[in-house]
Amino acid sequence: MDIKPGTLLAQVNDPADLKKLHKDQLPQLADELRQYIIDVVSIYGGHFGASLGVVELSVALHFVFNTPYDQLVWDVGHQAYGHKILTGRRHQFPTNRKYNGLSGFPKRSESVYDTFGVGHSSTSISAALGMAMASHYKGENDRQHIAVIGDGAMTAGLAFEAMNHAGIEKSNLLIILNDNCMSIDPNVGALKEYLTDITTSHTYNELRDNVWKALGKLPVGKTFSRDMAAKLEASLKGIISKSSNLFEALKLRYFGPIDGHNVNKLVETLSDLKNIPGPKILHIKTVKGKGYDLAEKDQTKWHAPGLFDKITGEIKKKAFDVPQPPKYQDVFGHTIIELAEQNKNILGITPAMPSGCSLKFMMEKMPHRAFDVGICEQHAVTLSAGLATQGMKVFCNIYSSFMQRAYDMVIHDVAIQKLPVIFCLDRAGLVGEDGPTHHGCYDIAYMRCIPNMVVSAPMNERELRNLMYTAQLESTKAPFVIRYPRGEGVMPEWKTAFEEIQIGKGRKLRDGEEVAILSFGHPGNFAASAIREVVPQGLNPAHYDMRFAKPLDEALLHSVFEKYSKIITIEDGTVVGGFGSAILEFMNANGYKAQVHIMGIPDRLVEHGTPKELYNEIGIDANAIAKTLRQMCSVKTNV
Amino acid sequence: MDIKPGTLLAQVNDPADLKKLHKDQLPQLADELRQYIIDVVSIYGGHFGASLGVVELSVALHFVFNTPYDQLVWDVGHQAYGHKILTGRRHQFPTNRKYNGLSGFPKRSESVYDTFGVGHSSTSISAALGMAMASHYKGENDRQHIAVIGDGAMTAGLAFEAMNHAGIEKSNLLIILNDNCMSIDPNVGALKEYLTDITTSHTYNELRDNVWKALGKLPVGKTFSRDMAAKLEASLKGIISKSSNLFEALKLRYFGPIDGHNVNKLVETLSDLKNIPGPKILHIKTVKGKGYDLAEKDQTKWHAPGLFDKITGEIKKKAFDVPQPPKYQDVFGHTIIELAEQNKNILGITPAMPSGCSLKFMMEKMPHRAFDVGICEQHAVTLSAGLATQGMKVFCNIYSSFMQRAYDMVIHDVAIQKLPVIFCLDRAGLVGEDGPTHHGCYDIAYMRCIPNMVVSAPMNERELRNLMYTAQLESTKAPFVIRYPRGEGVMPEWKTAFEEIQIGKGRKLRDGEEVAILSFGHPGNFAASAIREVVPQGLNPAHYDMRFAKPLDEALLHSVFEKYSKIITIEDGTVVGGFGSAILEFMNANGYKAQVHIMGIPDRLVEHGTPKELYNEIGIDANAIAKTLRQMCSVKTNV
Repeated sequence: MDIKPGTLLAQVNDPADLKKLHKDQLPQLADELRQYIIDVVSIYGGHFGASLGVVELSVALHFVFNTPYDQLVWDVGHQAYGHKILTGRRHQFPTNRKYNGLSGFPKRSESVYDTFGVGHSSTSISAALGMAMASHYKGENDRQHIAVIGDGAMTAGLAFEAMNHAGIEKSNLLIILNDNCMSIDPNVGALKEYLTDITTSHTYNELRDNVWKALGKLPVGKTFSRDMAAKLEASLKGIISKSSNLFEALKLRYFGPIDGHNVNKLVETLSDLKNIPGPKILHIKTVKGKGYDLAEKDQTKWHAPGLFDKITGEIKKKAFDVPQPPKYQDVFGHTIIELAEQNKNILGITPAMPSGCSLKFMMEKMPHRAFDVGICEQHAVTLSAGLATQGMKVFCNIYSSFMQRAYDMVIHDVAIQKLPVIFCLDRAGLVGEDGPTHHGCYDIAYMRCIPNMVVSAPMNERELRNLMYTAQLESTKAPFVIRYPRGEGVMPEWKTAFEEIQIGKGRKLRDGEEVAILSFGHPGNFAASAIREVVPQGLNPAHYDMRFAKPLDEALLHSVFEKYSKIITIEDGTVVGGFGSAILEFMNANGYKAQVHIMGIPDRLVEHGTPKELYNEIGIDANAIAKTLRQMCSVKTNV
Repeated sequence: MDIKPGTLLAQVNDPADLKKLHKDQLPQLADELRQYIIDVVSIYGGHFGASLGVVELSVALHFVFNTPYDQLVWDVGHQAYGHKILTGRRHQFPTNRKYNGLSGFPKRSESVYDTFGVGHSSTSISAALGMAMASHYKGENDRQHIAVIGDGAMTAGLAFEAMNHAGIEKSNLLIILNDNCMSIDPNVGALKEYLTDITTSHTYNELRDNVWKALGKLPVGKTFSRDMAAKLEASLKGIISKSSNLFEALKLRYFGPIDGHNVNKLVETLSDLKNIPGPKILHIKTVKGKGYDLAEKDQTKWHAPGLFDKITGEIKKKAFDVPQPPKYQDVFGHTIIELAEQNKNILGITPAMPSGCSLKFMMEKMPHRAFDVGICEQHAVTLSAGLATQGMKVFCNIYSSFMQRAYDMVIHDVAIQKLPVIFCLDRAGLVGEDGPTHHGCYDIAYMRCIPNMVVSAPMNERELRNLMYTAQLESTKAPFVIRYPRGEGVMPEWKTAFEEIQIGKGRKLRDGEEVAILSFGHPGNFAASAIREVVPQGLNPAHYDMRFAKPLDEALLHSVFEKYSKIITIEDGTVVGGFGSAILEFMNANGYKAQVHIMGIPDRLVEHGTPKELYNEIGIDANAIAKTLRQMCSVKTNV
C-alpha cells in the first residue's frame, strides 16, 4: 500500500532538504512526520510510541546540526524512525523490520547517518564520547557529538560510567535526556523520582531564578551580618551551580528541562548549546506516543502494538477456531504465581521487562514478592545473589541477549558461590524482527562453560513448568538456567500438574534405527515435525529431548552412542561451543566415533525477519532437519 | 615465624570479645590490629594498603553491630584482613592467600562473618540490598545490612544501579563510602572530583549548618517580601535536603564526611545510624596505607608490595645472575608505545589497571593517547567501539576475569558492528593467589562463540609483539583478542623486530610421530618442556603452536589430522567449550577420528595458591603433559 507523505515531508529526502525549510515550517513538518509514522506502523507494524515521542527532536536535531559530520547516536534506537525517514530512507520505510528490509534500529551499514548500531540500551553516551574524543584528538573541534538517551536507559550502570568519564573530558558531547518516565513499562528507581522532582517540584528549576533574584537583594542588617550573607551567598552559589544537581555533580553542565514537543524551542536551545564547548546535558520532557491518543494513554500496550486500525485504534489480532498454545512468557508468568503460592521463599526479579516476560502478573498479585528493578541486569543478578544467601528462591527473568550484561555477576556472585538463583532466560534463540542485537544465540555457550551451572531448556509448556518446579525445590542447590524462546509453545492445554525432573536427566521420545536426533529445548518440535515427515518415507530416526546442556545425561548418551552411529544435534543457539559441542566433548571423552551433524545457529550474524524466515535461512527448521535425515540415512526415500 | 599480637588483640577471638572492651580501649586495639597486619603481610605477603586504611572501621563495625546477625559486606574484599583477624581467623591469618590457606577475600565457605564472597569490585550494595530486602520480607526489622565500598568501586555502573534501587526500597541498608581517592591506582572521573568537592570545599558541609542557621534569622522587610522569603526557604530546604547532594538525589540519606581513622567518632556515628531506618550512606575519609609511612606516600606501590622489611621498608626482590624474561605486562606496556610512535591512530584504554597492565608507561609518555577510565569495563569497551568508528586503533586492556563485566559490549557494540577494537586480555589463565574470582578461565569459551571475533594467544614475548603489531594494521578489520597470562614470559631478549602474522595461521614447532600436541598460548611452553623430557625416553611428539583459537588454521589442522592419530590439546582455559572443543568441532566437521586428549582448566572452581601449585593440582603442567604423552604413546618409555 502506498502511503503518501505530507507536502513538506515529501520534499525532504535528506537533512539538506530539511535545512532549506523556514523555521516556521518545522511544526508542520513534525506533524507530517508523525502522521507518516502512524500511517506506516499501523499497516506494516513496528515500534510505535517511542518514535512518536521524539518527532520534534528528530526534526530539530537534523535542522540545527550538520549531520552526518556532526554525529548523532540514538540510544536503544527504536525511537529512530523519524531520523530514518528524514535521512533518505522514507521510501524504504515500509520495509522496516521486514526480512531483507530496513532494520528497526540504527545500523552503520544502512546509512552514514547511523553512526552507531544500537538495540540494547544505554550505550549512547559511551559511544558518542568515544567519537568526541576521537574528534578532539584529531583537532576537529567544530564537530558536535550528540547522544539521545531516555530516562529509562539512564538507570543502567553503563550510562553512569560514561557520564562519570564524560564530565572530565573536554570534548564536544551533548547528552539529550529524553525524559518520558517510561521504558517499555513505567520507569522505576530513585533517578526517576529525582527527575520528576527537578521537573515538577518547587525545589529546583522554577525557584532557581527566584533564589538568584533574592540573593541580589538580601538585606544586610543586625540579625544577618554581612559576613553571614557572604557565606550564605557563597554556599548558595556553590550549591546551585555545582552540587545542586546530580548531573552537575558529575561535572556535566545541565540545561532544562524544556518541552520536547516544542520544535522551535528545541531549535533555539540546540542552536545555543552548539556554541557551548565541553560536556553538557539537555533535559527534555516528552510524552511517549505523543500525538496518538490511545498510545499516550496506554504507553506499554502501544510500545509495539502490532498492526492496528489507525482510525478506530483497534489492534488487529488473528482469530483462531481452536485453542492456541500459550506464549512461553505467559506460562512463566502464571506458573511462578502457582509456585509462589506454595513456596513462601519464592521471589521474582525482572530488569525492566515485566510486560515482556510476564512477571507483571505476579507484580500485580504479590507486589511485595515481585520486583521490576529497572534497566540494570547487573544489579538484578547480584541482588538475586544477595537474596539467595538468605534462603530466598529467586526467579530472575532476563532476556538471553540482555543477560550478556550480567555475565560477570552470574559467574562471580552466583556460580562461584553456588547460590541457587534461577535464571529464566527469555527470548532465547532467534527473536525475529529485532534482529542480531536481540537474538539469544550465545547463552548456551556462555553459560555452559561456567562451573556449578545447570543449563536447561524446555521443549514445551509442561517441561517449562516442571523445570521451574524443579529449580525452586529446596533440594536444588545450584544456579539453574531455564532458557526458552519468544512466543508460542505447542500445548493448548498447558496447565499440567507439576512433576520433579531429575537434574541432568533427558527423555527418550522415540526409538529408532541408524540415526538419533538429540534436541535441546523448543527446536525439539522442529525435529518431531521432521520425523513425522520422514517416517512415511521409510526412515526411522530416534529422538531424545535432552533437556539439559549441562549436566549432560551421560547414561542416556551412552545408550544412544552404543546404538546409533549417526547423530543429529539440534539447538537454537550458536554451533560454536554450544549444546552440539557438549555432545562432541562427551563423545570424545568416552571414545565414541559416531558421525555427528550439529544443527544450530551458524557462526555469523543472523539479520532480522520473522523467526520462520530466519530458521529457514539458517537451515534448522523442520524441512532442513528432514533433508539432513534423508542425506544421512542409507534408507532410500520416496522423494 | 610466630607473630605476637598486642595485649588487647590477643584477647579478641571473635566480635563478642571485642564488645567486652571499653570504648576507650578501641584506639589501642586498632593500633595493635594495624601492627599485626603489618607484621604478617611483611613476612607472608598479601594486599596491604587497603586493610590498613580500614582498621578503625573494622573495629568500630564489629563493636557497634551484632555481626553476623547484622550483615556486613566488604566490597572487593582485599581490605578485609582486619575483619578476618577480628572474626576468629587470627591464628590462620599467616596462611592468607597460601595454597589451602585463608582466602585473600571474604568467602562464605570460610566464615559465617563473610556474608558474601567478593573479589571483583562494586557488588556490595546490590548484595547487601538483597540481604536487606530478604530481612524486610521476613519481618526481621531489627537486622542491619552494611556495605563498605570504596570511592573507586563507586564509579562502576553496578554500584550506581544498586543505589538507584536502594533509594526506593525501605530496607535497613547502610552504605559506608570509604573515600581514600584510590583504586589500585589513583581514582579518576567526575565522581572523584565531586567527592573531593563535598569534602574539602565550602560549598556543602561546613556551610550547610550556617545556611540553616541563617535561614532561621532571615529578616523580612520591604526589599525582601514575606512571600519571597517563604519561597527562598522552601527552595533552600529543597535544595539542601533533597537535591543538593548526588546521593540524596538518589534518595539515600547522606551523612558525613567524617574521619575514618577516629575510631570513637566512628563508633558514635555508627551507633546513631543504627537507629535510623531505611537506606543511608555514610561518607568516611581514610588514607590507604594509614599508619605505615611509605605505604601512605606511594599507595600504588604498596597496594600489594610482596614481602618487605617492615623496619627499612625494603621490598624484597629475588636476585638473579642471568637476565630474566620480562613480564608479559611490560612487553605490552612498552610495545604499545613503539607501535603508537609509528601509527598515530593507536590509543590505549584501561579501566583502572594502568599499573597492573603497564599502560602506565604510555600514559606517562603520551598522556593524550592513553586513558585510565576508572573501574568501568563496560564503558571502556563501548568507548573503544565509539573511538573505533572514527578510525582509531584502540588497545583496550582488561583482565580476562574483569572482561566478563563487558561481555555484552563486546558482542553488541564491537562484534556485531565488526569494529576492529583490540582487546588485550591480561591475567588470562590461573592468576594464582587471588583465586577463583580472578582466574581467567572462561574467556576462550566466551569469546570464541561470538561471530567476527579473532581470538589469539601468544606463546612468548615475540608472539605477543607480533600479534599486537598485526592487530593494529589497517588491513585488520575485525575485533581482535590477544590473551596472555600474568607474569613472566620466556624470552630475556624480547625486543624483537615486528613481523606480521597472518590471521588464523598457526606454526609448526616440531615434527614428530604418532602424537601431536596442539597448544594455545603460553602453555605451549609447558608442552615444549614436556617434550624435552619425553624425547630422551623414546617418544617423538609433534608440536604446533596454534596461536589462534578462532579462526582455526584449518590447513594446518588438516595436515595434522592426516598424519597423527593421537592429539593432545593444551590451553590455560576451561575445557568446556574452549580451544580443545574448537579442535573437536573441526575434527567432527571434517570427519576425522583421532584420539584427542583435551588438557585445560577443569570444569570446577580452582582455588588460590601459586600458579605452579595450581597447574600441578589440575594436571596441565609439564609433568602432567609428559605423563599424558607416555600414556598415549605405544612407544615404550624408560620410566
